[in-house]
Amino acid sequence: MRVLDPLFRWPAVEEMFDDRSRVQAILDFEAALARAEAVAGVIPAAAAEAIAARCQADLLDLGDLARAAGVAGTLVIPIVERLTVLVARDDAVAGAYVHWGATSQDASDTGLVLQLRRALRAISDELRRLADALAALADRHRGTLMAGRTLLQHAVPTTFGLKAAGWLDAVTRHRARLADVRRRALAVQLGGAVGNLAALGNAGLAVAEALARDLRLELPDVPWHAHRDRLADVACWAGQCTGTLGKIARDMALLAQTEIGELHEPAGEGRGTSSTMPHKRNPVAATVVSAAAVRMPGLVATILAAMVQENERGAGGWHAEWETLPELLCVFAGALHHLTDAVAGLDVDTVRMRANLDLTGGLVFAEAVRMTLAPRVGRAEAAQRVAAACERAREEGRPLRDVLAAEPALAAHLPAAELAGLFDPRNAVGAAAALVDRALATHARISAQED
Amino acid sequence: MRVLDPLFRWPAVEEMFDDRSRVQAILDFEAALARAEAVAGVIPAAAAEAIAARCQADLLDLGDLARAAGVAGTLVIPIVERLTVLVARDDAVAGAYVHWGATSQDASDTGLVLQLRRALRAISDELRRLADALAALADRHRGTLMAGRTLLQHAVPTTFGLKAAGWLDAVTRHRARLADVRRRALAVQLGGAVGNLAALGNAGLAVAEALARDLRLELPDVPWHAHRDRLADVACWAGQCTGTLGKIARDMALLAQTEIGELHEPAGEGRGTSSTMPHKRNPVAATVVSAAAVRMPGLVATILAAMVQENERGAGGWHAEWETLPELLCVFAGALHHLTDAVAGLDVDTVRMRANLDLTGGLVFAEAVRMTLAPRVGRAEAAQRVAAACERAREEGRPLRDVLAAEPALAAHLPAAELAGLFDPRNAVGAAAALVDRALATHARISAQED
Amino acid sequence: MRVLDPLFRWPAVEEMFDDRSRVQAILDFEAALARAEAVAGVIPAAAAEAIAARCQADLLDLGDLARAAGVAGTLVIPIVERLTVLVARDDAVAGAYVHWGATSQDASDTGLVLQLRRALRAISDELRRLADALAALADRHRGTLMAGRTLLQHAVPTTFGLKAAGWLDAVTRHRARLADVRRRALAVQLGGAVGNLAALGNAGLAVAEALARDLRLELPDVPWHAHRDRLADVACWAGQCTGTLGKIARDMALLAQTEIGELHEPAGEGRGTSSTMPHKRNPVAATVVSAAAVRMPGLVATILAAMVQENERGAGGWHAEWETLPELLCVFAGALHHLTDAVAGLDVDTVRMRANLDLTGGLVFAEAVRMTLAPRVGRAEAAQRVAAACERAREEGRPLRDVLAAEPALAAHLPAAELAGLFDPRNAVGAAAALVDRALATHARISAQED
Amino acid sequence: MRVLDPLFRWPAVEEMFDDRSRVQAILDFEAALARAEAVAGVIPAAAAEAIAARCQADLLDLGDLARAAGVAGTLVIPIVERLTVLVARDDAVAGAYVHWGATSQDASDTGLVLQLRRALRAISDELRRLADALAALADRHRGTLMAGRTLLQHAVPTTFGLKAAGWLDAVTRHRARLADVRRRALAVQLGGAVGNLAALGNAGLAVAEALARDLRLELPDVPWHAHRDRLADVACWAGQCTGTLGKIARDMALLAQTEIGELHEPAGEGRGTSSTMPHKRNPVAATVVSAAAVRMPGLVATILAAMVQENERGAGGWHAEWETLPELLCVFAGALHHLTDAVAGLDVDTVRMRANLDLTGGLVFAEAVRMTLAPRVGRAEAAQRVAAACERAREEGRPLRDVLAAEPALAAHLPAAELAGLFDPRNAVGAAAALVDRALATHARISAQED
Repeated sequence: MRVLDPLFRWPAVEEMFDDRSRVQAILDFEAALARAEAVAGVIPAAAAEAIAARCQADLLDLGDLARAAGVAGTLVIPIVERLTVLVARDDAVAGAYVHWGATSQDASDTGLVLQLRRALRAISDELRRLADALAALADRHRGTLMAGRTLLQHAVPTTFGLKAAGWLDAVTRHRARLADVRRRALAVQLGGAVGNLAALGNAGLAVAEALARDLRLELPDVPWHAHRDRLADVACWAGQCTGTLGKIARDMALLAQTEIGELHEPAGEGRGTSSTMPHKRNPVAATVVSAAAVRMPGLVATILAAMVQENERGAGGWHAEWETLPELLCVFAGALHHLTDAVAGLDVDTVRMRANLDLTGGLVFAEAVRMTLAPRVGRAEAAQRVAAACERAREEGRPLRDVLAAEPALAAHLPAAELAGLFDPRNAVGAAAALVDRALATHARISAQED
Repeated sequence: MRVLDPLFRWPAVEEMFDDRSRVQAILDFEAALARAEAVAGVIPAAAAEAIAARCQADLLDLGDLARAAGVAGTLVIPIVERLTVLVARDDAVAGAYVHWGATSQDASDTGLVLQLRRALRAISDELRRLADALAALADRHRGTLMAGRTLLQHAVPTTFGLKAAGWLDAVTRHRARLADVRRRALAVQLGGAVGNLAALGNAGLAVAEALARDLRLELPDVPWHAHRDRLADVACWAGQCTGTLGKIARDMALLAQTEIGELHEPAGEGRGTSSTMPHKRNPVAATVVSAAAVRMPGLVATILAAMVQENERGAGGWHAEWETLPELLCVFAGALHHLTDAVAGLDVDTVRMRANLDLTGGLVFAEAVRMTLAPRVGRAEAAQRVAAACERAREEGRPLRDVLAAEPALAAHLPAAELAGLFDPRNAVGAAAALVDRALATHARISAQED
Repeated sequence: MRVLDPLFRWPAVEEMFDDRSRVQAILDFEAALARAEAVAGVIPAAAAEAIAARCQADLLDLGDLARAAGVAGTLVIPIVERLTVLVARDDAVAGAYVHWGATSQDASDTGLVLQLRRALRAISDELRRLADALAALADRHRGTLMAGRTLLQHAVPTTFGLKAAGWLDAVTRHRARLADVRRRALAVQLGGAVGNLAALGNAGLAVAEALARDLRLELPDVPWHAHRDRLADVACWAGQCTGTLGKIARDMALLAQTEIGELHEPAGEGRGTSSTMPHKRNPVAATVVSAAAVRMPGLVATILAAMVQENERGAGGWHAEWETLPELLCVFAGALHHLTDAVAGLDVDTVRMRANLDLTGGLVFAEAVRMTLAPRVGRAEAAQRVAAACERAREEGRPLRDVLAAEPALAAHLPAAELAGLFDPRNAVGAAAALVDRALATHARISAQED
Repeated sequence: MRVLDPLFRWPAVEEMFDDRSRVQAILDFEAALARAEAVAGVIPAAAAEAIAARCQADLLDLGDLARAAGVAGTLVIPIVERLTVLVARDDAVAGAYVHWGATSQDASDTGLVLQLRRALRAISDELRRLADALAALADRHRGTLMAGRTLLQHAVPTTFGLKAAGWLDAVTRHRARLADVRRRALAVQLGGAVGNLAALGNAGLAVAEALARDLRLELPDVPWHAHRDRLADVACWAGQCTGTLGKIARDMALLAQTEIGELHEPAGEGRGTSSTMPHKRNPVAATVVSAAAVRMPGLVATILAAMVQENERGAGGWHAEWETLPELLCVFAGALHHLTDAVAGLDVDTVRMRANLDLTGGLVFAEAVRMTLAPRVGRAEAAQRVAAACERAREEGRPLRDVLAAEPALAAHLPAAELAGLFDPRNAVGAAAALVDRALATHARISAQED
C-alpha cells in the first residue's frame, strides 16, 4: 500500500496486481503447464505433481526475484530458475521438466490473463452494485423535477429519475459489452520461442488444449504473443467505462456546487468536510473519479500504441504493457469502487432541485408555450410572441407566466387553465417516466442473465 | 481532396465524411423525422412529404452554411432554417413542421450515425478483402520456412504461413468484434432539448420508434445525447484494428529491409521506387499504415476524453468529437485500404527467406538439439554441451551441425541421421501448419456468417 | 473553408496551412535554395533567377499535384517535376538545376518551418491581445469581491481581479516561453538524401549557410530530418497554452451557469442565445476552447510518439506529423482567437459576484474568525468554538456572525467591531491586490520586451 | 522496489519519488514555512525551531498516513495533524503554529517542486553522461563508413560518426532546454485557501518571499495552485527527451538485427543473451527505452489534460497529476539511465558496417554518378543512362561500377579514375565530418556553460 492508494484505489483489485499475485499467476501457469504436459504424455505425471506442488509464491523471495529480473530482462526467467532449483532439490527428473517447451512470454501472458480474469470478476460484481444503486435512484426519483441543463445553462425541465436512468443505461451497456470482452480476451497463451510450439514436437496442440482446459481459458486459434488486440479490448472497455464514470462524477460535482446544492456525496468520517470551511461538502469521490477519467485516455492510448510489436516478439511494445495494463485496470477499478460507494449513499435534495427550477421565473417553460401556440397562430408568430414575452419578463423581472397571462392577444389562444398547465413542470417532462421504465427493464434483464 | 489525401486516405470513405455528405445525413434525419411524425399522427402526412422532398444537400449552399454555423454554434440550426424557408416557399403549413420537436443534437447525432453506418459497411467489406488476401498468403506459404525473430533477432525457425495466419487471425477477431460494435452503436438519437422528448407531448416514444424503423436504426432505451459510449466503442474498435494493421505494416517494413529482403510491396506506377536510388523498394503502404498507427492512439484518447460531458449536453466534450471522429475513421480507413492493396499484391521472396535462415550457421537449431538431448543426458548437461558447441561454432566460424557431429561424446546420444533431422528446418516448425489450418477455418466460418 | 471551420478555427491561421500555402512554402524553399546555390557558386546565377521566378503556387494545379503525390509518396516530388518543366520550358540549363542536391524532405521540412514562422507570429500577436484583455480585467476588478471556490465549493472570499491576474500570469509565461521556442525551432533543413549534404560535394555547408541567411532561419549544427524535437517543442508549447486556455474557458463556463451568473460571454449576432430558450447565455467561446483542450493532449501525444523515426528517414513517424502538426496548430489558434474575442468583451456581473458571496450566511468567513481567535484562546479551542458556531448557524439558518455575536464567551476575545471587520470581505482577501500588481508588472515588462 | 523496477527504473531517481521522500518533501515545506513565518514576524522564532526540528519523515508511520489520507482526501492533512501532535507534545505554543496560514496544496505542490529539483539535478547529470558518450562515438567514428538508410532501405553512404552526432545534437538541445525549464518550473507555491494569502493578513507576501529564499526556489508573481503550466513544462520536456531516447534506441535495435549486426549493446551478466539461443544479442536497453517511448506520449497527454482545473482548486485535474507526474519522471529517468549505460559500452562493428554498404553491388553510388554526369550530358540523359545501368546491374547481378565501366558511351564523360573515385565511399559522405565537428563544438560549449 502506497500512501495515496486508499484515496484512489480499490484494495481488493489492487491486491490482484501486486507483486505477490503477479508471481503466483506465473506459477499457476507453470503448474498447469506441467499438468497439461502430463495429460498429453509429454512429461511424467509424477514430475507434474512435483512441479505443481512447489508453484507457490511464498516459496520465493520477491526482492531476490526483482534483482534477477533486472538482469534477465523478464521476471519469468528467474522464477523458472528458482522453481527448478526447488523442484530438483527433491526430484531431479521433475526439475528437468519445469517450464518444459514454453517460453517466458507464455508464462507472462497467461499469468496476466489469469490476473485479468480475477479482476474482471470483481469489477463485474461492482458494476452490478453500481447499476443497482443507479436503478434505485432512477426508480425513486422517477417524478423528481429538476432543471435540464445544456452547456451548463438551464434549458427545460426534466426529472432526476431520467438523469439517473441515463447514467444507468450507459453502465448497463458496459456490462453487456463486458460479457463479450471476457469471452474473447481470456485466452491461454502457449507458443514456445516463436509461436509454433516447436519445442513440444508433435504434442504442441495437445498440450495447449489440455492447458486451456486446466486453466478454464479459451484456446486461441494461434498463439497471440505478438497480437495484443485481446488486451487492447480489455483496456478500451475499461477506458469507455471510465468515460461514463467520469460523466456521472462530473454531473455529481456540478450538482453539488454551493450555488446548486442538489446532490451531495454521503458524508462520514470527515470525508469531504473541512473544520475550517464548514460549509463545504466536497465531492471527494467525484474528484477521484474525475482524476481517473483524466488519466484513462492516456493509459488506453499507450496500450493501443503498444500493439505495434515486431515479428514474433516485439522490442518495446510488449514491455510497455507490463506496468501500464495493471495500472490502467487499478485506476479504473478504484474509480468504480469509489463512485459506487458515493452513488449508493447519495444525498438528493429534491427541494433544492424544485427551487432551482424556478430560478428563471418560468423562462424554462417558454419552449412549451411556443410549441403549443405554433399550430394555433403559426410557427413564426408563436416564436415571435413568446420571445417578446420572455424579453419583457426578463426586463421587468416578472414571471413569464404573468406576462403571458396579461397579454390579451394571447388569451384567445391560450386559456388560463391551459396556460397554468404549461407552467406545471409535471407536464413538461414528456416521456421521462416511460424512458426510466425502459432503462430499468433492460437493467433487470441484463442482471437476470448474469445471475 | 486535399493535396495529401491520395497518399493517406481512401476516397470512398473520405467522401462519406465530406461536407456534402454531412449535410445530407442531417437532412436524411429531418426527412425521416417528418415521416415518422406523420406516422405517429403528430404532423400532417402532406407536410412530411413536402419536407422530405426538399431534404437534398444540393439545394443548400455549403459556404453559406459554414458562415451561419459559425454564428449559430452548430451546423444544424442554419440547415433547419434554410430547409424551413425552402419548404415554406411552397407549403407554409409544412414549413411550420420542419424539425418539429427535435433539437439540433438529435439531427447531428443521428446524421453521424447514418454516416458511420455507411462507412462501417465499406470498412467491413475492405476488412474481408484484407482477410482473404491474408488467408491466401497463409495457405500458400504454409510450408515456407523463414527465421522467427524476437526482439529483432533470429530466434528459431518458423513459417511465413504461420506469420500470415497470425496476421489473419487478428483481423478475423476484429471482424467478429465489428458485428457487435455495429449492432450496439448504430442507434437513433431523438430526445429534444434535454432528452425527455417533452416537445412531442405524449407522442415522443411513438415518434422515436417510427423514426428508428424508418432509418433502420436501433431504438435506444433512453436518448444517448450525453452518453457517448456508443461512439467511443466505434473509435476504440477502429483504434484496435489500426493497432493490428500497424503491426502487420511494421513486420512488412522490417522484412523489406535491404539486408533482409524477404517481402516487398507490389511495385507499380513509380510507387516506392526512386530513379536516383534504384536499389530502393520503399515500403510505401507500410509507411502510410505506420503513420496511421502513430496517430490513432491520440485520436482514440480524444474520443475517450470527450466522453465526460456535462448534464444534458456538454460544453466542449461533444464538440471535441465533431472533427475528431470523422478524422479517426478516415485515418483508419485509409490505412486499411492501402494495406489491403499492398497485401493483395505482396511480393514474397521465399528463396531469401530460406537463405536468411542459414545466416547463423545453424545456431537457430541449437534449442532443438538441446530439447532432444535433455531427456537423454539430463537438462543441465544438455544445456551445457550445446552452449559449448555453439560457442565453438561462433569462434571458429563453423556450422553448428559440423561442430556437433565432430564431438565424439555426443555421437552416442545423437546418431548422425537424427542430427541431420534436427537441422532440417522442416522438422523445426512444430505445429505451424496445424495452426495455419485453425486460423483458416475460423476465417472461413466468420466469412460464411457474414455472407 | 469546411462547414465547421468558422466555429472552431481562426481563418487567418487556417489559411497559412491550406494547400496553396503549403505548396508555396515548398516553392519558397526551392527558390531560396537556387539563390543560395548561386551564392555558393554551385549553380549559375541566371539559373537561380529563372528558377526563383517560377516558384509560384498559382502556376501549379493543386488537384493534379494531389493525384501525383499519392503515387510519389510525397508532395515535393511532383512539385519539383512540374517546376522543372516550367523552368526548362524557357531555360533548359536552369531546368537542370531545380532542387539541385536537395532531397524531398529538405523542401518539405523547411517549407513547414516557414509556415510555422508565419503562424507563430500571428499567434504571438493574438496572445498579446489576450494578455492585454486579461490585464484590463485584472486591473479593473482589483477590488471586485467574489467567492473563491475549491472543488466547486465556496471556500473563502477572493477578488475577480486576482482570478484574472492568475489567468494573465499563465498567459504571460507562455509568451515568455514562446520566445525560446521560436528561437530554437525555426531552423532550416538541408541535408540531401541522408543528411550529409553529399550531393553538394564540398559546397554543402556553404549552401546551407547561404540558404539559412536567405530565409532568415537558424542554421542547425547538423541536419535535423530524423530528429524532430524542434517540432515537438512547438507542439508541446501549443499544448501547454491550450491547457491554460482550457482552464480559463472552464472557469468562464462555470461562472456563467444559470445559478451563478457572474460572467457572460459577449452577446451578439445570435451567438449563444436561443429563441426557444431565451434565458440561455450559452458560453460558446468557452465551449469551443474546451473542445480544443480535450483534443490537444491527443494531438501532442501523436507528435511525441512520431519522434521515434528510424535511421536517416523514418517509415511512418515523419508521415504521422504531416497532417497532425498543422491540425494541432490550427486547433490551438482557433481556440486562442475565440477566447480572446470572448475575454475582450466579457460581461462581468459584479453585483451577482457580491450576492453569491453571501449565500452561505457568512460561513466563508469562519476561517478568518478561527485564525483570529487561535492566538487568543488556543488553536484547538478556537477551532472547536468556531465549528460549534458554524453548526448552529447551519442548523438554525442564521448568519454565522449573529451566532458568534450572541455567544457571551466569545465577546471578551472578539469585540463587536473586530467581529464586524472579520465579516467584511474587503478585509478577507489578503494580498490579492498586491498579487494583481505583480502580475500586471510582469505583463508590462514582457510586452515591452516584445515591442 | 517492485519486481519490475530494476529492469525499467533508475533506483537513484525512483527513490526520490517513493513514499518516504514524498512525506519528507512535504515536511521540508512545513519546516521552511515555520522559519519563514518567524523571519516575517508572524510566529515566534522558538516555535519555528520546535516545528522544524520535528519535520522528519522517520517520525511518522507511512501506513498510518496512508489510511488517514484515504479519509482526508489528501496526504498533507494527516501529516500536519501528526506533526502538530509531535510538536505540541513538547511545546504547546509551537504546536499551534504548525502549517500556519497555509493550505494543503501549498505543502503538496511545494513539496513536489522540491522533489522535482532533486530529480532534475540527477537527470541533468545523466544527460551529460549520455552526451559525453555520444560525443565520444561521434568523434571516434567520424570516418566510419556505413549505409545511410531511409524508410528502412539503403539510400546512400554516410558515416556512423554523423549518425552519432545527430543523436548527440538532439541530446544537447534537450540539455539547453532543461536550463530554461528548471529556471521556470521550480517556483514555490504559497497561497492559502484560495491563493490570496488571506490567512496571513498583511504578512502574506513577506512570508512567501522568505519561504522562497529559505528553499532557494523562485517566488512566482501569483500563486500557481490552479495554473499548472510549470509542471506541464517539465512533463513536456521529459516527453521530448524520451522521444529522442526512443529514436536512438530504435536505431540501435535496428542496427543490432541479426542480418545487420552493426551495433550491439554491451554484453554482461547474462543480459540480452540466451543459453538456448546463443546467437542472440538482444537489445535489452533499447527495448526498455522503446517501451518508455511508447508510454511517454500518454503520460504527457495526461498532464496536459489535467491542466484544465476549476476555479481556485480543481476537482480531478490536480489529483490526476499526483500519481502521473512522478511516474512520468521515473519512466523517463529509467530510460535515460539504461540507454546511457548501453551507449557508454556500445559495441560497434565497423567491419560489418563496411560490408553491408556493399550489399547492393554499388547501387548506393548511383546518385553520385548521376550528379556528376548531369552537368556533362544533361540532367535527363544522365538520369536515363544511370537508371539503365542500374537496371542492367540488377538483372545481371554485376557490380554497377563494372557495368558503367563497360559502357563505351560513358567513358568519354567519366574517365576510369574518376569513376573509381565515385565508388569510393570516402568521397561519398559530403560534409559528414564537418557536421560532426559542429555538433561536438556545441556539445563542448553547452557542457562548459554547465560546469
